[in-house]
Amino acid sequence: MIGKDNLTMLTDFYEITMANGYIKSGIVDDIAYFDMFYRRVPDGGGFAIMAGLEQVIEYMKNLKFDDADIEFLREKGCFCEEFLDYLKNFKFTCDVWAVPEGTPIFPYEPIITVRGPVIQAQFVETMILLLVNHQSLIATKANRIVRAAKGRPVMEFGTRRAHGSSAAVYGARAAYIGGCSGTACAIADRDCGIPALGTMAHSWVQMFPTEYDAFRKYAEVYPDNCVLLVDTYNVLKSGVPNAIKVFKELKPAKMGIRIDSGDITYLTRKARKMLDDAGLEDCKITISNSLDEHIIRDVLLEGAMIDSFGVGERMITAKSEPVFGGVYKLTALEVDGEIIPKIKISENVAKITNPGFKTVYRLFDKDTNKALADVVTLDGEDIPEVDGYEIFDPNAVWKRKKLSNFYAKNIREQIFRNGECVYESPSIDEIKDYCKEQIDTLWDETLRLDNPQTYYVDLSQKLWDMKARLLEEHTIR
Amino acid sequence: MIGKDNLTMLTDFYEITMANGYIKSGIVDDIAYFDMFYRRVPDGGGFAIMAGLEQVIEYMKNLKFDDADIEFLREKGCFCEEFLDYLKNFKFTCDVWAVPEGTPIFPYEPIITVRGPVIQAQFVETMILLLVNHQSLIATKANRIVRAAKGRPVMEFGTRRAHGSSAAVYGARAAYIGGCSGTACAIADRDCGIPALGTMAHSWVQMFPTEYDAFRKYAEVYPDNCVLLVDTYNVLKSGVPNAIKVFKELKPAKMGIRIDSGDITYLTRKARKMLDDAGLEDCKITISNSLDEHIIRDVLLEGAMIDSFGVGERMITAKSEPVFGGVYKLTALEVDGEIIPKIKISENVAKITNPGFKTVYRLFDKDTNKALADVVTLDGEDIPEVDGYEIFDPNAVWKRKKLSNFYAKNIREQIFRNGECVYESPSIDEIKDYCKEQIDTLWDETLRLDNPQTYYVDLSQKLWDMKARLLEEHTIR
Repeated sequence: MIGKDNLTMLTDFYEITMANGYIKSGIVDDIAYFDMFYRRVPDGGGFAIMAGLEQVIEYMKNLKFDDADIEFLREKGCFCEEFLDYLKNFKFTCDVWAVPEGTPIFPYEPIITVRGPVIQAQFVETMILLLVNHQSLIATKANRIVRAAKGRPVMEFGTRRAHGSSAAVYGARAAYIGGCSGTACAIADRDCGIPALGTMAHSWVQMFPTEYDAFRKYAEVYPDNCVLLVDTYNVLKSGVPNAIKVFKELKPAKMGIRIDSGDITYLTRKARKMLDDAGLEDCKITISNSLDEHIIRDVLLEGAMIDSFGVGERMITAKSEPVFGGVYKLTALEVDGEIIPKIKISENVAKITNPGFKTVYRLFDKDTNKALADVVTLDGEDIPEVDGYEIFDPNAVWKRKKLSNFYAKNIREQIFRNGECVYESPSIDEIKDYCKEQIDTLWDETLRLDNPQTYYVDLSQKLWDMKARLLEEHTIR
Repeated sequence: MIGKDNLTMLTDFYEITMANGYIKSGIVDDIAYFDMFYRRVPDGGGFAIMAGLEQVIEYMKNLKFDDADIEFLREKGCFCEEFLDYLKNFKFTCDVWAVPEGTPIFPYEPIITVRGPVIQAQFVETMILLLVNHQSLIATKANRIVRAAKGRPVMEFGTRRAHGSSAAVYGARAAYIGGCSGTACAIADRDCGIPALGTMAHSWVQMFPTEYDAFRKYAEVYPDNCVLLVDTYNVLKSGVPNAIKVFKELKPAKMGIRIDSGDITYLTRKARKMLDDAGLEDCKITISNSLDEHIIRDVLLEGAMIDSFGVGERMITAKSEPVFGGVYKLTALEVDGEIIPKIKISENVAKITNPGFKTVYRLFDKDTNKALADVVTLDGEDIPEVDGYEIFDPNAVWKRKKLSNFYAKNIREQIFRNGECVYESPSIDEIKDYCKEQIDTLWDETLRLDNPQTYYVDLSQKLWDMKARLLEEHTIR
């Protein structure tokens, strides 16, 4: 299975220099808390989708430095033997909490928290970010595209333009979580259970003396599901007429045509009419060729006749915004059992962190089950489910809102306890269904592709007070 | 070693349906020629850089369907036993030619050609595209950033924002080929020999009672090379003064500061002055924080005082244009030893292919060794190195140019012969040096970041005539 390499050494080198430094400073076992959170929804969207947690869990379960790793580090000449011994006997003993995959997530919420000896909790930073940033990026983008398709199936077709092999496989996984119906990537089916599909390239058509010969042969080989690529020579003058001829001669059980170039609206409307006039109302039309949510929305508004979409490069790379900016920040230390909150100040206000050991509640309307707001609280705080509970904008505290008739749900779960995994990852189809269900709790205004309403993510009064106090303490006058 | 999985099944599903179809059609052993080429330089640049070939070679050497793969395919219910037997005994027997890694490449040139039984030559499409598209994308982007840095070292810092683990590792490799000095990614050092470096995160600073304590401890642990991150609290009021204090107290052999937020030009100029005033002229200043070629060019023009750059997300994702659109197209069949050229027509003129078995010559000026033009020819054609040799624009044949005092070099090499690898991949440092040397053969006008002069890529007269004839034959009136 791909991606089952030992990824322990896939880390920023500074995690290693810091780890060695923690040993040399005698603070290796100090208990630290780190949060992963992100700051901005890609593409100006209203929310992102959590994904990649299953791979984070696999990574944490398999953390191990082998002899070659330790020798490699020894040869660097800057690490002490005590540290190399520590790595040799490395055992992951952290606690981890996370938002399950498929959950809509919003900026500044702690979507993963790691608590444990600083050397360990720090070390896992790079891979947590790598895995969750990647899959959340693609799941979020895929969901935008799926929403634009208005119920029509969207297939992930991007393997050849993915950034390497794991981008292809786990990108297909994330796209499926985000709502795609399947993938072109065969290994994603074998290893992750994402249904893979595929029919023919232009080269199939070129391999035969005529387009008709190529189509006829394909229909003979695949009588159950025959999708013909009709744009090798000329869609309307050659491809569609030849497809119609073959469909009428061989009557495949399911039939379709795929168009991979040209003006989508024009060609699909013409092709639909030609197919219907030939009595082939059941023949489906699939479109591919550098699609994204905006093109899909536009051609559907223009009346293009499309039954399903194949979306490649712009989904698998999240082309319009290929960076999911999740970060991982120290938020607290534990000294003699007491949690000491920590803050990072910055010239960029958006880079100031929320301190302390926290969790996230999502507040739902009791009648509609729609999500009303999220509240980030200190761990152990309750949200009183009483009418008149007041939330406020942490950056504009005069913006206040009283809630009633709601219930609060902690959206995080414990994943590791003292290094033992206490969470069972759902199946990929469970995650996909859960994602759809959770997105249905969001208002249409939040789902808008452009200029969505900003969903409320507020801080509890206790957390806000703590942050204000730390900011005050660090102010340099 | 990461990425050493068997990637045979990492393929678009249609490669498999077509392969089964070739068997059922009795044309499985027909000899076909496929070209990989790309159509447009990302970011409006003047050239791209070939990368990823070493991984293509590894992939081809390791092609093998294991029993689980075959069982997986059998369960799909649409493949014949003859085909599954074929896969069980699969042996790669193709010929492969390619442009070596590190070579500047231009649109529409065949950078890889595969010749062999159609079932095999077709099957390797997905991975060739995946690997070469990814690494060429990143090498090309990295080189833009390195050029903007005007000789200052650029480190690749993007692991946490890469699209999965292989994007991190092979992205670091490609960035190094493109001219980066090293990477933050430890495993890219262990596995690919890319020098990895790293110092501290903000969390190191937060772990200690004061910033001064954190800096002092780091300088004690790393007296040979001490780079301090000075923007955890306040760059000019806290970070730089504390760094100066520690540097003067402990006098590390090499010292530097890193700034990861705020106004680069303002902060680096102020910091440089503070360091110089303290007698620390040797202290280097490193900048990170969402850099790209345009920001680097601008801050240097503004007089920012920077010794080196750390570039993360915008390089590892090629954020400004994250898709390298390489494609793989059938160009010829071989019938009784005769090569029959094939063409793909399209409504999009840019998608019409160049037919036939081809190669690429680069023409250099004998005195300056500067590259004058590339000419795509049919295989076996010579470029007469005579004064007055005329090249012409294939899309505007009245644009003609006579060359003199030049020599012609075939820029492709044979990689596989009848399935045996006949090419030894150079070391990563050889590739990096070769890349730099080859880029030095390009004119400054081609190296421009924006609006470069378009380098000539012409077709030989024979190839142009062949293409015109095939277009005429396929015209539907």
